[in-house]
Amino acid sequence: MSEYKTIDVAATQMLDKAKEIGFLTTFDRAKAQEPRCTFGNTGICCRICLQGPCRILPKKPGGNKGVCGAMDYTIVARNTVRYIAGGAAAHSDHGREIAETFLHVAEGKVKDYKITDTDKLMRVAKQIGVETEGRDIMAIAKDVAMLALQEFAEVDESKELTWITKFSNETRNQKFRDTTIMPSGINLSLAKLLHQTHIGVDADPVNIIFGGLKAALSDVAGEHLATDLSDILFGTGVPVVTEANLGAIKADKVNIALHGHNPLLSQVVVTAAKEMQEEAKAAGAAGVNLVGICCTGNEVLMREGVPIATNFSTQELAIMTGAMDAMVVDVQCIMPSIRTAAECFHTKIVTTMPIMKIPGAYHFAFDEQHAMDSAKKIIRLAIEAFKNRDKDKVCIPNIRNTVVAGFSLEAMYNIFKKINPESPMKVVTDAIAAGEIKGVAALIGCNNLKGTHDFNHTTIAQELAKNDVLLLATGCSAQAHALAGLMNGEAVKKYAGEGLKKFHARLNAAAGLTAELPLMFHMGSCVDNSRVQDFATAMANEMGVDNADIPFVVSAPEAMSEKAVAIGAWNVAYGNPTHVGVIAPTVGSQLVNDVVTKIAEDVFGGFFFWEPDAHKASARMVEILEERNWKNAMRKKARDAREASK
Amino acid sequence: MSEYKTIDVAATQMLDKAKEIGFLTTFDRAKAQEPRCTFGNTGICCRICLQGPCRILPKKPGGNKGVCGAMDYTIVARNTVRYIAGGAAAHSDHGREIAETFLHVAEGKVKDYKITDTDKLMRVAKQIGVETEGRDIMAIAKDVAMLALQEFAEVDESKELTWITKFSNETRNQKFRDTTIMPSGINLSLAKLLHQTHIGVDADPVNIIFGGLKAALSDVAGEHLATDLSDILFGTGVPVVTEANLGAIKADKVNIALHGHNPLLSQVVVTAAKEMQEEAKAAGAAGVNLVGICCTGNEVLMREGVPIATNFSTQELAIMTGAMDAMVVDVQCIMPSIRTAAECFHTKIVTTMPIMKIPGAYHFAFDEQHAMDSAKKIIRLAIEAFKNRDKDKVCIPNIRNTVVAGFSLEAMYNIFKKINPESPMKVVTDAIAAGEIKGVAALIGCNNLKGTHDFNHTTIAQELAKNDVLLLATGCSAQAHALAGLMNGEAVKKYAGEGLKKFHARLNAAAGLTAELPLMFHMGSCVDNSRVQDFATAMANEMGVDNADIPFVVSAPEAMSEKAVAIGAWNVAYGNPTHVGVIAPTVGSQLVNDVVTKIAEDVFGGFFFWEPDAHKASARMVEILEERNWKNAMRKKARDAREASK
Repeated sequence: MSEYKTIDVAATQMLDKAKEIGFLTTFDRAKAQEPRCTFGNTGICCRICLQGPCRILPKKPGGNKGVCGAMDYTIVARNTVRYIAGGAAAHSDHGREIAETFLHVAEGKVKDYKITDTDKLMRVAKQIGVETEGRDIMAIAKDVAMLALQEFAEVDESKELTWITKFSNETRNQKFRDTTIMPSGINLSLAKLLHQTHIGVDADPVNIIFGGLKAALSDVAGEHLATDLSDILFGTGVPVVTEANLGAIKADKVNIALHGHNPLLSQVVVTAAKEMQEEAKAAGAAGVNLVGICCTGNEVLMREGVPIATNFSTQELAIMTGAMDAMVVDVQCIMPSIRTAAECFHTKIVTTMPIMKIPGAYHFAFDEQHAMDSAKKIIRLAIEAFKNRDKDKVCIPNIRNTVVAGFSLEAMYNIFKKINPESPMKVVTDAIAAGEIKGVAALIGCNNLKGTHDFNHTTIAQELAKNDVLLLATGCSAQAHALAGLMNGEAVKKYAGEGLKKFHARLNAAAGLTAELPLMFHMGSCVDNSRVQDFATAMANEMGVDNADIPFVVSAPEAMSEKAVAIGAWNVAYGNPTHVGVIAPTVGSQLVNDVVTKIAEDVFGGFFFWEPDAHKASARMVEILEERNWKNAMRKKARDAREASK
Repeated sequence: MSEYKTIDVAATQMLDKAKEIGFLTTFDRAKAQEPRCTFGNTGICCRICLQGPCRILPKKPGGNKGVCGAMDYTIVARNTVRYIAGGAAAHSDHGREIAETFLHVAEGKVKDYKITDTDKLMRVAKQIGVETEGRDIMAIAKDVAMLALQEFAEVDESKELTWITKFSNETRNQKFRDTTIMPSGINLSLAKLLHQTHIGVDADPVNIIFGGLKAALSDVAGEHLATDLSDILFGTGVPVVTEANLGAIKADKVNIALHGHNPLLSQVVVTAAKEMQEEAKAAGAAGVNLVGICCTGNEVLMREGVPIATNFSTQELAIMTGAMDAMVVDVQCIMPSIRTAAECFHTKIVTTMPIMKIPGAYHFAFDEQHAMDSAKKIIRLAIEAFKNRDKDKVCIPNIRNTVVAGFSLEAMYNIFKKINPESPMKVVTDAIAAGEIKGVAALIGCNNLKGTHDFNHTTIAQELAKNDVLLLATGCSAQAHALAGLMNGEAVKKYAGEGLKKFHARLNAAAGLTAELPLMFHMGSCVDNSRVQDFATAMANEMGVDNADIPFVVSAPEAMSEKAVAIGAWNVAYGNPTHVGVIAPTVGSQLVNDVVTKIAEDVFGGFFFWEPDAHKASARMVEILEERNWKNAMRKKARDAREASK
């Protein structure tokens, strides 16, 4: 193992280089923060009013509560759900921005965007109840846009979110109603949750957590419509073969990294780059080379096959190659330190969104009316920077792994349909029923340097694959697998158990793709966890059981962002056992921790478990899948016996 | 001075009693939290993602930034504006709830509420551009309600909040536009601010603070419409004479405390109590006695003359009297420990709002369709509790002070109009121009046991009065003055400077009230700070100068809640010098602290200053008023000279 907390060889090389030039990376900073403050780390530090910070100090008289009298459970619950609020706000604001542009496209007000996937528009319109019969595409699109925007605008608490009710099955919808967590408006849920967690409002941890789950369901709606509208605007992912890791950066080309989460500008940069190869050549480069980081990277990977440079924890290291001419960032998970890193080189950092600036970086404010102009200006800036590149400082790790990605749910259905045209998901559920595979695991979430970068992601993937678990992946987790060379057919041969190998072989034979299917199916960015939940819901519908009964698990081995907390929370509400590889800041209250890890199962069927050890976590997930399969088999047996006795 | 951190004699007696029975109050808990964690206290602890807590540790290599690379200024700015988000959410959700009920009243859907102040309805309708000519009251009310709800629902970023643009003058509106802080929708501003402060989004402290100010202006709109619609539903405050302090609790009556912020239920409890005096008598009591705590207390004081029992820090002590039969709470600033306190006695704690529960308390969910039923049930519960009251445990401090309150802006105008019917605010600005009074100070905000309960409030009031500053008051600050016996005409005689005395004498002569005007004019609850800003705007309009030039200061001597941060922030944006008596968690970043205390003045004219010492703070405020007067005089002189030379 390297002296650094990463399993990535390219990252190790770049960390050596950073050390050499004296640049302190996030790896150094993570070390500097050790040991973490126990109060903050376990959730029992309250800073919700200015009488604090209050810390639970049981040994001091009066110290077992905050100044206001809030117990540990109130403090922990409030802190936890405020993470959900932050995460749901981030996802949904991203969705709202796309919905706004989508509306303007439908109204014919913007020239740089268009409806690309009309089939998906029709499917989404029908699903949410928009009349399609004999209507103009743009009129349908406008209705879809208005319904999407209404999800954010709704303030009538008697209403229900369309993107929840229309994409969940009725059993789950009823569960959400019965538990009072069905949201009416996305922004309303967030505002109410902030209010609920204000000083001297809710003291009841269960009520607070239910408020948090309502916001988490708002997050689902925001994510789902972001995915849907992005697909309609930019195209729905189809299988692509590309590569990943820092070797995707090319010494002879103008390199531009697309980093962040919102595809509105990056997608246009991809188009502009195609047109501007000659300009780059005129500057002495072999062309323009785009690479992706984080979920903007996933968006352009899924739709355009743009290679992945790296993921969250190693974003600074893309700059350490000395060959990154510009890094274009939009929103979320962008380290402000990339600008400091850029100062060691010729790299230009370009921020593009009004709510995301870095002092000292270039700012090209995104404007849907001038997206192509902006994209071109940014590429020209990179070309100029390329001219100033210091060749002596260039050192690109010669590491790149083949990646097969682009698995939207539609793309997966297209494969499944070649085996079972009527009931595509039956391909999966039959394989489970036959014991060929044990179930499905979604590998999701971020990087978190409390552990070792990408170790948990890749270890869990290998362990689950060995145990015949079908793997889906999104976000930085998907990128971890891609970087490590797991996202291709070779990895199936190397890591999959016999059952999973057979399942893959059958799919490969039917799919007829030029490349073999990968060990895990990359379903997209973190907002695309909505695709993953659609997969799970389709499984439940196919099996004719409740979501909480399907052999499906979720793992966020290196969860870091508030978005991850929101995603985790709604997964639990949807009935999914959800592994988190970081000890969560709920452990400061036994009560709250028990609610989210135990009592949640009684209420929703889903629950959290914290397990930093990748091997133990994998074993637990396999057990859970086996238990759910066993329960389903027992239920079937009982049902068959009842039938037989009639 | 008492051994406890309070200047209130009644509180001191009750703290003795608490000690005797072994109940640890918020005073004990505040002591237990000393010393506060320096990182949290100065704002340089970041818990926005799960890689943290990150603390700025300049001595450790890599420790001068968070793991993500966030600098101290980013961390401090994010933490600060998230306080604003919490506060604006609380106020505005309160406003939205009232708007919802208001709509149902206009639609004739609820029986327990009605339009009480049609004059105010007409004034508000005209101000916000609703057609009134020849229209039915209910149709007008419905339009007002729809516009109010749209403030929360708006997601079109090109729109502007009605309750900002229509109640601010054009100079300020333009300032808000120029600085990009004019909000479009209340809930949208909150969601966007959470997004902006998510890990890896905004790193620019100034941009973050501007996002925070946008949310703070949303807070103004939420507050203002809460005030307006409450006045229309329940009546606009007129001068009332009542009393304050724990002596307002009556040994022979069924005592019910109304505590929280939202008047929707408490107002109905007041009506129900009038009807149920006989029921109380049948149970052996001399009747039902209502008392108020915090801003629900202020709401029913302003409109119904309900006496004030106490304010935030001493809410538990109302229960220590042993004579509190029920404490009915709605939302915000309610210590969960009141339930523990209640366990020492027969007191029933009744929570009433779906987002505010306390484990172990009674919960009567508020429902506008059954408000009167709920109110009666709650009063009956109190009557039952009264029967179980242990007389041996009753000990009510014999302290009550006369209070003259109820000064809505309309009520003040009614007095001013008796002196100057055309230009009522000229009564104030003329007195300033004549040097009779130095200006106006708004005494606002909470209690905070980092200092001594009510000491700063009352000391600053006395010092400013001595310096001939006209005093307005709201919230727990107003209650501090009421509890201490400052809110009456006697206090004017005792504390006012000669100029202020003359000004009061003139007002008293004109007002023709049965009681003399008090030392400070109680304008209501904390959402009623909108009345205070209307007062300031009227001064600016009358003087023909920008808001930033009027001799007007704001003081929150014991700021505690996130709402206080929001209120402080918008006061700065409106051009008001704003004193905070607690060291703010911005001091961890010199840059951010300078932005809010210095650079803000260049941009908005308003600024913060932190000063825990009441005497120094008062002196600074007087200086600021004198400086603004001097500048206005110099400007006038220059103008006169220019005119003369023409």
